[in-house]
Amino acid sequence: MRVVVALGGNALLRRRQEPTAENQRENVRIAAEAMAPIAREHELVISHGNGPQVGLLALQGAAYKPDEAYPLDVLGAQTEGMIGYMIEQELGNLLPPEVPFATILTMIEIDPADPAFNNPTKFIGPLYEEAEANALTAGKRWAFKQDSDKWRRVVPSPLPKRIFEIRPIKWLLERKTIVICAGGGGIPTYYDEKNSLRGVEAVIDKDFASELLARELAADLFIMATDVGAVFKDFGTPHQKGIKRSSPEAIQSIEFPAGSMGPKVQAACHFAQKTGNPAAIGALADLPEILERNAGTTVMSGSKRTVWHEQ
Amino acid sequence: MRVVVALGGNALLRRRQEPTAENQRENVRIAAEAMAPIAREHELVISHGNGPQVGLLALQGAAYKPDEAYPLDVLGAQTEGMIGYMIEQELGNLLPPEVPFATILTMIEIDPADPAFNNPTKFIGPLYEEAEANALTAGKRWAFKQDSDKWRRVVPSPLPKRIFEIRPIKWLLERKTIVICAGGGGIPTYYDEKNSLRGVEAVIDKDFASELLARELAADLFIMATDVGAVFKDFGTPHQKGIKRSSPEAIQSIEFPAGSMGPKVQAACHFAQKTGNPAAIGALADLPEILERNAGTTVMSGSKRTVWHEQ
Repeated sequence: MRVVVALGGNALLRRRQEPTAENQRENVRIAAEAMAPIAREHELVISHGNGPQVGLLALQGAAYKPDEAYPLDVLGAQTEGMIGYMIEQELGNLLPPEVPFATILTMIEIDPADPAFNNPTKFIGPLYEEAEANALTAGKRWAFKQDSDKWRRVVPSPLPKRIFEIRPIKWLLERKTIVICAGGGGIPTYYDEKNSLRGVEAVIDKDFASELLARELAADLFIMATDVGAVFKDFGTPHQKGIKRSSPEAIQSIEFPAGSMGPKVQAACHFAQKTGNPAAIGALADLPEILERNAGTTVMSGSKRTVWHEQ
Repeated sequence: MRVVVALGGNALLRRRQEPTAENQRENVRIAAEAMAPIAREHELVISHGNGPQVGLLALQGAAYKPDEAYPLDVLGAQTEGMIGYMIEQELGNLLPPEVPFATILTMIEIDPADPAFNNPTKFIGPLYEEAEANALTAGKRWAFKQDSDKWRRVVPSPLPKRIFEIRPIKWLLERKTIVICAGGGGIPTYYDEKNSLRGVEAVIDKDFASELLARELAADLFIMATDVGAVFKDFGTPHQKGIKRSSPEAIQSIEFPAGSMGPKVQAACHFAQKTGNPAAIGALADLPEILERNAGTTVMSGSKRTVWHEQ
């Protein structure tokens, strides 16, 4: 079976945890423990988030020479190297030494006419006072949105159209290589008027990028691993109910607050509808159980009725 | 023909040039122009240096929170992502869009008993005043050496023993993928007492790592591209002579000042002796001419006499 696991940002760095090398490595080790049983039995492709890591690199660059801070595409490439390195090393330490690994830098094509460019929504980097935000808007043409009583940079989040390295990823899978790729949603790139590929200051949603990856690899199962055990109806209320199994149509009729499960559910439904194969959302620690469909939320076309987890 | 090109640090960033994203990209574009003719006709593997880039990341980390600065192996992984991204994009822009590319994160095994660990020699990062250097020696157990009237951190430079990702690199070459790997000499790693792979604060010489790569790939030609046109005898004196072709034995009888051509010559000789194939050292801009053996210095076993470039 071919399995694509998307590691959520919160799986690699717990909420409010400092993105030090030690903290990241500790979390990567936990993630590796959860993925190792899958790696032992199946073809495995791993993608991952990079939000806090990019945020830290942006802070470091700003602290040194703000005018020479690297653009977002370059920071994204840095985090693909760094996080891929940690995953490759820690998962490798749990598997026989002969298992081949490859961490592949991943560029993803976006459409420069994507409507997302008219409405930047993805928060990145630190909180600023209003005056600082105004100066950065004037100087660097950054867009800002209010976040509590401070301001925070926002960038567009265009849809992923094409994974440039998809053939090498496939060829390596055919050789039973564990592939780590599409980190941070991939590096967003587009063809300019001279038909040259260029990076762009944007962030592709990691779940959407991973869904495209899983779909193009014809994965038998696409899992989005996060820090929540399942998709819940009425989450946070006394009558919340965890969804064990659902059809895309049934789960899409439920409303989820923006920025929470919405993109994951949307990615799961798209994958299930386009491929006919199941997509799952659940807690990293439950990965083996998710494979058995005993934990998490599995979205499958043709699921006749929604099945709920026991309370 | 299978060609491995090692891009020297000075090929990616000119001496004393600031490592901004713009400067790096401009130099990567020049390197891409030089490599494109090779890529059109041959199998191509590209490795590269990362000295100034790691230096900048170290400065950025220190400027933000010195106590949480990332260790050298993690910074190396970041630069492999960043530089690989730029090379992949810029070289890709000069080739037909169907040419597959892969930038592979590369870990290289070193021996923790390597004598280099008793004598750190590789300068990295910024210059410090003596008092700062003493504080860092006490706090972080960093080693320092004097550099003019300041102090600079030194780390060990152990020999590369094994490239962990060599099989994926081979498999991708068989599919005519242009592979970018072993950046910055690869990330130095070793097996600890629990048989777990760990990164180490060291720098593998980029030319030695690239030679191992070229040798393990059975490259037909191994080129080290730098900013000097050839290996010279008596360089910088009125009677300097550029070597056009030499046997390993003849060129090894010449003495080169430490830190200059020495490691490159040593790497070229080792490759030529172990594989029977030629290794070349020359200027990035001359790459196509180096292939024709009309520029640079080619080291080949069986070269009967040393041939000199015309003055």
